[in-house]
Amino acid sequence: MGRHDVITASIVGATGYTGALLTDILTGHPDVRLHALTSKSYVGRRVCDVFPHLRIDRQYAEYSLAWVAESDVVFVCYPHAEAHLVVADLADAGCRVVDLSADYRLKDPEAYSSWYGFDHPRRDLVGEAVYGLPEVYREQIRTARLVANPGCYPTGMLLGLIPSAGDVDELGVIVDSKSGVSGAGRTPSEKTHFCAVTGDFRSYNEVTHRHTAEMLQQLGLAKGGPVAVSFTPHLLPVDRGILSTMYFRPRGGLVGTDVLTEKYRAYYEGEPFVEVCERVPALSEVSHTNFCRIAVREDERAGLVKVFTVIDNLVKGASGQAVQNMNLMFGLPEELGLRRAV
Amino acid sequence: MGRHDVITASIVGATGYTGALLTDILTGHPDVRLHALTSKSYVGRRVCDVFPHLRIDRQYAEYSLAWVAESDVVFVCYPHAEAHLVVADLADAGCRVVDLSADYRLKDPEAYSSWYGFDHPRRDLVGEAVYGLPEVYREQIRTARLVANPGCYPTGMLLGLIPSAGDVDELGVIVDSKSGVSGAGRTPSEKTHFCAVTGDFRSYNEVTHRHTAEMLQQLGLAKGGPVAVSFTPHLLPVDRGILSTMYFRPRGGLVGTDVLTEKYRAYYEGEPFVEVCERVPALSEVSHTNFCRIAVREDERAGLVKVFTVIDNLVKGASGQAVQNMNLMFGLPEELGLRRAV
Amino acid sequence: MGRHDVITASIVGATGYTGALLTDILTGHPDVRLHALTSKSYVGRRVCDVFPHLRIDRQYAEYSLAWVAESDVVFVCYPHAEAHLVVADLADAGCRVVDLSADYRLKDPEAYSSWYGFDHPRRDLVGEAVYGLPEVYREQIRTARLVANPGCYPTGMLLGLIPSAGDVDELGVIVDSKSGVSGAGRTPSEKTHFCAVTGDFRSYNEVTHRHTAEMLQQLGLAKGGPVAVSFTPHLLPVDRGILSTMYFRPRGGLVGTDVLTEKYRAYYEGEPFVEVCERVPALSEVSHTNFCRIAVREDERAGLVKVFTVIDNLVKGASGQAVQNMNLMFGLPEELGLRRAV
Amino acid sequence: MGRHDVITASIVGATGYTGALLTDILTGHPDVRLHALTSKSYVGRRVCDVFPHLRIDRQYAEYSLAWVAESDVVFVCYPHAEAHLVVADLADAGCRVVDLSADYRLKDPEAYSSWYGFDHPRRDLVGEAVYGLPEVYREQIRTARLVANPGCYPTGMLLGLIPSAGDVDELGVIVDSKSGVSGAGRTPSEKTHFCAVTGDFRSYNEVTHRHTAEMLQQLGLAKGGPVAVSFTPHLLPVDRGILSTMYFRPRGGLVGTDVLTEKYRAYYEGEPFVEVCERVPALSEVSHTNFCRIAVREDERAGLVKVFTVIDNLVKGASGQAVQNMNLMFGLPEELGLRRAV
Repeated sequence: MGRHDVITASIVGATGYTGALLTDILTGHPDVRLHALTSKSYVGRRVCDVFPHLRIDRQYAEYSLAWVAESDVVFVCYPHAEAHLVVADLADAGCRVVDLSADYRLKDPEAYSSWYGFDHPRRDLVGEAVYGLPEVYREQIRTARLVANPGCYPTGMLLGLIPSAGDVDELGVIVDSKSGVSGAGRTPSEKTHFCAVTGDFRSYNEVTHRHTAEMLQQLGLAKGGPVAVSFTPHLLPVDRGILSTMYFRPRGGLVGTDVLTEKYRAYYEGEPFVEVCERVPALSEVSHTNFCRIAVREDERAGLVKVFTVIDNLVKGASGQAVQNMNLMFGLPEELGLRRAV
Repeated sequence: MGRHDVITASIVGATGYTGALLTDILTGHPDVRLHALTSKSYVGRRVCDVFPHLRIDRQYAEYSLAWVAESDVVFVCYPHAEAHLVVADLADAGCRVVDLSADYRLKDPEAYSSWYGFDHPRRDLVGEAVYGLPEVYREQIRTARLVANPGCYPTGMLLGLIPSAGDVDELGVIVDSKSGVSGAGRTPSEKTHFCAVTGDFRSYNEVTHRHTAEMLQQLGLAKGGPVAVSFTPHLLPVDRGILSTMYFRPRGGLVGTDVLTEKYRAYYEGEPFVEVCERVPALSEVSHTNFCRIAVREDERAGLVKVFTVIDNLVKGASGQAVQNMNLMFGLPEELGLRRAV
Repeated sequence: MGRHDVITASIVGATGYTGALLTDILTGHPDVRLHALTSKSYVGRRVCDVFPHLRIDRQYAEYSLAWVAESDVVFVCYPHAEAHLVVADLADAGCRVVDLSADYRLKDPEAYSSWYGFDHPRRDLVGEAVYGLPEVYREQIRTARLVANPGCYPTGMLLGLIPSAGDVDELGVIVDSKSGVSGAGRTPSEKTHFCAVTGDFRSYNEVTHRHTAEMLQQLGLAKGGPVAVSFTPHLLPVDRGILSTMYFRPRGGLVGTDVLTEKYRAYYEGEPFVEVCERVPALSEVSHTNFCRIAVREDERAGLVKVFTVIDNLVKGASGQAVQNMNLMFGLPEELGLRRAV
Repeated sequence: MGRHDVITASIVGATGYTGALLTDILTGHPDVRLHALTSKSYVGRRVCDVFPHLRIDRQYAEYSLAWVAESDVVFVCYPHAEAHLVVADLADAGCRVVDLSADYRLKDPEAYSSWYGFDHPRRDLVGEAVYGLPEVYREQIRTARLVANPGCYPTGMLLGLIPSAGDVDELGVIVDSKSGVSGAGRTPSEKTHFCAVTGDFRSYNEVTHRHTAEMLQQLGLAKGGPVAVSFTPHLLPVDRGILSTMYFRPRGGLVGTDVLTEKYRAYYEGEPFVEVCERVPALSEVSHTNFCRIAVREDERAGLVKVFTVIDNLVKGASGQAVQNMNLMFGLPEELGLRRAV
């Protein structure tokens, strides 16, 4: 398609946090026309009634393949294990698809059984899907029919460690991540009750978080061989954002914080959404933006490298990155529609 | 019973916020032995597993009248409209009961239909029940078989306005209250999701909140005639506490903030849990305590009195006041078990 | 000036919250070129270092009249009593000025002594200054040399009450406002320490807040005669936003919530930044925007009208409104540069 | 002294967070009589006015050695580098001293220059001081004249790692800690402004935090040889509490989470304030208590042990532990005065 054609886009499962944010971003995107917004529980209600901070007067409708498939691109925001069939239907019907679930992120089809507990019926599409991390797979994304949008934790982790993947020693990496509550989704639960979160802090899924599978796969690909990853997520009493503190022992020894910072700067030169900082960044610096900020520190006493990354889990960790992928897929400037606060 | 007998107490519906706090307070109460802790959804689970901050190794059990009725006193923590039958059964079985629901707070039996949407089957007990505000009904509480523990908003409102009830003019009182989220209960909902509350603030039930009925009744009784009450509750992004800002125009004109403060001091002289302050108090000053703090201010320019009260909605606004009532009912020192932070 | 000329704008006192937000908005404004950013304590430091969430690589400089006066428009962000001389200098030097302090908001020069404790030396400019509430003074703002940007509390209060000013009875209005902490400014103090605010809530300046003077003046002008205003501010444990709950007894009696809502709708028809809602709005609905949302409720039982308004104190309550005023002063579309989140 | 004598205790620097909490705990302690509360900036003011949540009507006074030295025990709450002289004076004068600063925690006198930037003038007392971690130094504390109360981070870190000290391999331990804001002290600063903390999260002193020195020393002593410690503190948007997530590779390989948990249980058998849990604990479980909760997890995939500890930084991390030490020093039950919420 030409630069000035309008892209017809739909959002399937539009009433979770990522769907609502996509609705907001795409409404403000100069080259997109929103087609279908589907929902299971809010059919007939208006966006501005369900999300009063959004000034968008459109209705949610029930999903129908024929109707949604009229789109150039469809964003699928279903939970993992529930998305893969809809994604496949839409891809088969000729749409380009950005899948925000985990259902096409893993390259090994067996991994879906062991990590996600379902048998993946579409190994063809698993093989074809492109992992939607533009900083690594930009060229493949441009022509992809199906983009598997990365998980929020893997996004922050990979952007921080991929430049060092070749240097990680056999002991691997330790990833200590702290996420805002929106990462747990919009469905109310005991764990996301305000009184259970405010003033509190806790870890969860201490050795079994499923995002580990993505981290292992992608960091291994970057390193060109297996790498150990020990991932521990924590729940912050904040709405949005992920800060990951990561540790590894560099194979070749320490080089100095300044040299390492320069290496990261060079690696991400020209990247529109990655900023390498001298100061260690705080969550607020990327809140409501599609940026990832990174800083590195060498701990000489302990012989370790510490890498810090911050992202907004809903933007660069989900909906913003999904639009970045869409921009690439349709030959648009990568930052289009993503420069304002969201 | 004598001063040194041990009171056998049970809690029905022990796994909400008020039930959990009662469990905590009563476990530390020197003259109480906990008998039954009943629950609908946590049967067989231990207190310390459901509420890890409580170091109490007891199990929740299913409710059975015969078993619970072995208690000297039962605290009923069911939602309104669900409590009145259990309360009546227990009272009929010879227990003394502190009902934390609204089901026996209103003296006019018709009011239950109009405000709470159910037809009250036990007008006898409605007539007999004592409104459990010790600062007003101390003597009746001592001998009561059934105490209707006041609502959280009415507690803070009444303690602030009752000393002035006789002075309120025909325009009545305006009650602008701000409550922490625990007032909404422990059941997860869209409205209590952390992301829906943090950084936010809103009003709710702006002209129809059911606690208005209690306020009208009790302030009217204090004044000796009808009084208009305009009540507006708001939801604070905090766990616990209610601050009420109240306004009225005194029939006899202003007397000066100092004189009015002295009047309140005199009114509450000797009260163990009411503190009249010169400084206007903040929520944190009564958090996790059974105290109510009060301050008054005259606005000469506008000809108004402003009254400020703070309470912890779960303590003085619920479970603490319930234990204060129990202490009165059993001839114990009113403060017993209530002086530590809870 | 013509529509496509670029406006040269400066910010004096650019490192407080309002200055930083102005820097952000004006940097994204298509018709503005930033000239001077002055600061007392950050001379030589870069915007992006002092405010890491702003990606703006400019330096703060010391104030000099000659240099700053090269601007078409200057935003003065000094505290009250410190701004008036600089404002006067710049106006005398031929700049158009938007003063974000209180120093030119009151029309009665004596009021500065009684409310702000200083003797105003420039009664000529006090007389000339236009109160920068576009919804009321739009035409005067267009040609004003000096705009006195309204206080945050008065903005929310006036937008909620001006449509009813003529109906307020002799008892006046009660304004119960709740503000985020940024309203207290960026200078650290015991009162703004995180531990003094989180989980807490309190009132302050309960009968003496200086914004009362603005409210009295402007509501009186709208009503065409004196009106009593009783204002009580409270401090919310949130970053940004003001919710005001307001009460008055309408002279002509109640008309029904729907009729009153329609009256407000009609009053604000065509206003780009005022939204009259059926639902009572929450703080989050206007956060980081220049919108004011309003809802009304009649309390039939008490014979009162309740008006609710929400604004972002830093945007519509300060810097956003300042840019809205600038747009009017320079013949630009009123919303230019103000439609994105800030 | 005998069990039933009353201990005369003073607090020097009583108006910081730790001083205020000590005042609260000691006021409720059955065997303590408070003597002097000294302050530099609040002389003549009452406790209940400076800290309205404390219902204690005593005045702060200026420090004088003669007066303070009338105490049996003195708690010194000065900042590091400011405490050591006062501590020495009081010890020389015959008082027993609990020093809450870092000034006597390090055994190597040279370490004060390198980590704290001052030359320690009292090597004799440095040698004599006992590190006040009762779980390790209980017997020495009983007879100590000077107890160096541990830092908040080291307390949580050491309790989590000392049972494994012998198993830590040559790569050492990684300590990723997250602390509430009260750890930064009560003095207002840009970093503790509510608006700089709420909704945010950040690391600080990423490789240079001074508590590292204590960790190195004490873990080395426990291991019986040098051990590498890489410590990274982070600032949580909560008032109180520290959660530390710690990682090490056990020399002898993994043994299974259950076996390791049992090992920790056995190690802390009988400890009044250490609780080893199966569930990984949250901050709220120890908030306002003197408990430390610990859980362990083996990550088989990565070959690592993860240890989680939570403490309240102001209680077990400071004032509570100080009173626990005092109890030991005076032959009292270790838990006296520490079982209620503080």
